[in-house]
Amino acid sequence: MRFGMDAPLQLDEGTELAPWQIAYETYGELNADKSNAILVCHALTGDQYVASPNPITGKPGWWNLMVGPGKPVDTDRFFVICANVLGGCLGTTGPASTNPETGKPYGLNMPIVTIGDMVRSQLRLVEALGIETLFAVVGGSMGGMQVLQWAAAYPDKVFAAVPIATAARHSSQNIAFHEVGRQAVMADPNWHNGDYASYKQRPTKGLAVARMAAHITYMSDSSLHTKFGRNLQDRSKVTFGFDADFQIESYLRHQGMTFVDRFDANTYLYVTRAMDYFDLAAQHGGKLAHAFLHTKTRFCVVSFTSDWLFPTSESKAIVKALNAAAANVSFVEIDSDRGHDAFLLDEPEMFETITGFLNSAAWARGLT
Amino acid sequence: MRFGMDAPLQLDEGTELAPWQIAYETYGELNADKSNAILVCHALTGDQYVASPNPITGKPGWWNLMVGPGKPVDTDRFFVICANVLGGCLGTTGPASTNPETGKPYGLNMPIVTIGDMVRSQLRLVEALGIETLFAVVGGSMGGMQVLQWAAAYPDKVFAAVPIATAARHSSQNIAFHEVGRQAVMADPNWHNGDYASYKQRPTKGLAVARMAAHITYMSDSSLHTKFGRNLQDRSKVTFGFDADFQIESYLRHQGMTFVDRFDANTYLYVTRAMDYFDLAAQHGGKLAHAFLHTKTRFCVVSFTSDWLFPTSESKAIVKALNAAAANVSFVEIDSDRGHDAFLLDEPEMFETITGFLNSAAWARGLT
Repeated sequence: MRFGMDAPLQLDEGTELAPWQIAYETYGELNADKSNAILVCHALTGDQYVASPNPITGKPGWWNLMVGPGKPVDTDRFFVICANVLGGCLGTTGPASTNPETGKPYGLNMPIVTIGDMVRSQLRLVEALGIETLFAVVGGSMGGMQVLQWAAAYPDKVFAAVPIATAARHSSQNIAFHEVGRQAVMADPNWHNGDYASYKQRPTKGLAVARMAAHITYMSDSSLHTKFGRNLQDRSKVTFGFDADFQIESYLRHQGMTFVDRFDANTYLYVTRAMDYFDLAAQHGGKLAHAFLHTKTRFCVVSFTSDWLFPTSESKAIVKALNAAAANVSFVEIDSDRGHDAFLLDEPEMFETITGFLNSAAWARGLT
Repeated sequence: MRFGMDAPLQLDEGTELAPWQIAYETYGELNADKSNAILVCHALTGDQYVASPNPITGKPGWWNLMVGPGKPVDTDRFFVICANVLGGCLGTTGPASTNPETGKPYGLNMPIVTIGDMVRSQLRLVEALGIETLFAVVGGSMGGMQVLQWAAAYPDKVFAAVPIATAARHSSQNIAFHEVGRQAVMADPNWHNGDYASYKQRPTKGLAVARMAAHITYMSDSSLHTKFGRNLQDRSKVTFGFDADFQIESYLRHQGMTFVDRFDANTYLYVTRAMDYFDLAAQHGGKLAHAFLHTKTRFCVVSFTSDWLFPTSESKAIVKALNAAAANVSFVEIDSDRGHDAFLLDEPEMFETITGFLNSAAWARGLT
């Protein structure tokens, strides 16, 4: 579905975007008093197809373990909305969209967007759907940043918030890995300073390298060891060359190659930049607790032991700030060796935690 | 200095290399019975200029905190040898050397070299210098792999061994990061399948990206946080663009750009591959302890708490194997937040540990 606006969207950088649109999916039914809506926010390379097949890849929804009938985010009970983020490449306005001033794709003329801008655009969508207050906002990684931004910027519109495997600010190491990915894209001569559409080319090699580097950060050392170790693929000994001798090499190459089929390189630049710029404390005078003063939102913060990209210490900083703001918060660190990717995988303790939290919040909100 | 051989060097891949040469530096004086020689082995992007200025960069020796008069590896007492590794680009035979069959640089026609090949070539140099037994072999990271290989392959030729911040095998995550770096180089159209010399070009963009990605792995999350955090460089607020707003970005870009001035892209491929292939247990029937059976070498194994590239668990695996082989081993894990790079930095506990170990070993060997 598309939600389009000619009324300009105010952006944090100071400019306005118009026209703009959001591509989104919904699941389940909105109840009569519109009190059962859950907004699911996606991560860096995610999309709106949270619980239905992605039309490009044909793969199942990226969080169909979490969202669906009888799942923790139960579409038999809740009305679930998932929107492609601003700057994205799955239908929401982004650098591949047409620049009304030129009639060509924006490329680098697309304004820089922030997590705040993403959330501001989602608020417009939610309002257009007639929803006064979201029952919950749920998301992992960059999705969790949006959850925090929602709760901080629009506290009256968020009854419950579930930030998973995330942080209230992107760390120096996080920025460093993103910068490597961007430089890999920009080093590709087919990138053409972002104007590759005009050349009918795509910087696939650079984007694949960016994805490979990022993918390592999504897994833990031990999960790589368990899954691949030093195992060779389809050969009994090393070839003494630069072929993909090791399974981990062919796995990474495959990750890189399949990613470029479904993702736009400029969107990768824009969305990584949005994450880099995210610093919720800085938005509130340097005090993270001030982001949540007088909040009535209930929070469920989740982290994973082996997540080194968004480590538990970042979740604890969020919890500490919520405690300082006297917020209602529960925090669970889940024992998993799957690294950052754990939030997308079959992690029963995460499902139980979120099921329980949403049940309790639903009871508090009078949802049956 | 150059040590050149027309007699072929047998390589692990099964071929021979001829002619070949090693570029090396020495410091201090070899004593009369040639019993005071220490071989220092360098890491991935190191060179033979361990304690004297690098003639290309003009920078001081890369380990002049460790090696020199009155330093832990005391050139007033010991005769120190440091050789550019096989496959290198600072004078030792590598992919930029002339292929005698074509009269042009080898490029990808250079045979693949291993840590075993590097050490075999160093043995020839040591023999040519008339040294029967090295007093010590010392090195960090890939240098530590060479130390382990020396001790395992030529136990009678190594009186003492100091493997620092290293591992007996490259892990899946290690291979993964190296594969990203190689793919970044190979994605650069100026690489020309390794034949860039013929085109009078260099894949500098790809190599810079590889270096940037690797550099992140050399530092700890906390050292990045302490050193850079989210600090902006020379500006009071973000520019809402893709310039290097954050200090960590300009730092990484600088690391990438300066690296390509001093390093050859094909050497980066070859030497990373040598590290990937290193698996000392696999050389000994899958049992690491078998690599050290009946060894008389004294070992001093050193790791750093915040080193996530070669974590303490890898050093402990070495120590466990040495204990199983009834070897003489001391092990120190040094508390440092500087990550893998700590071994190159001013770490007083490391210096004290190695000074003490070498003093004790010198006494045992009858050196005054």
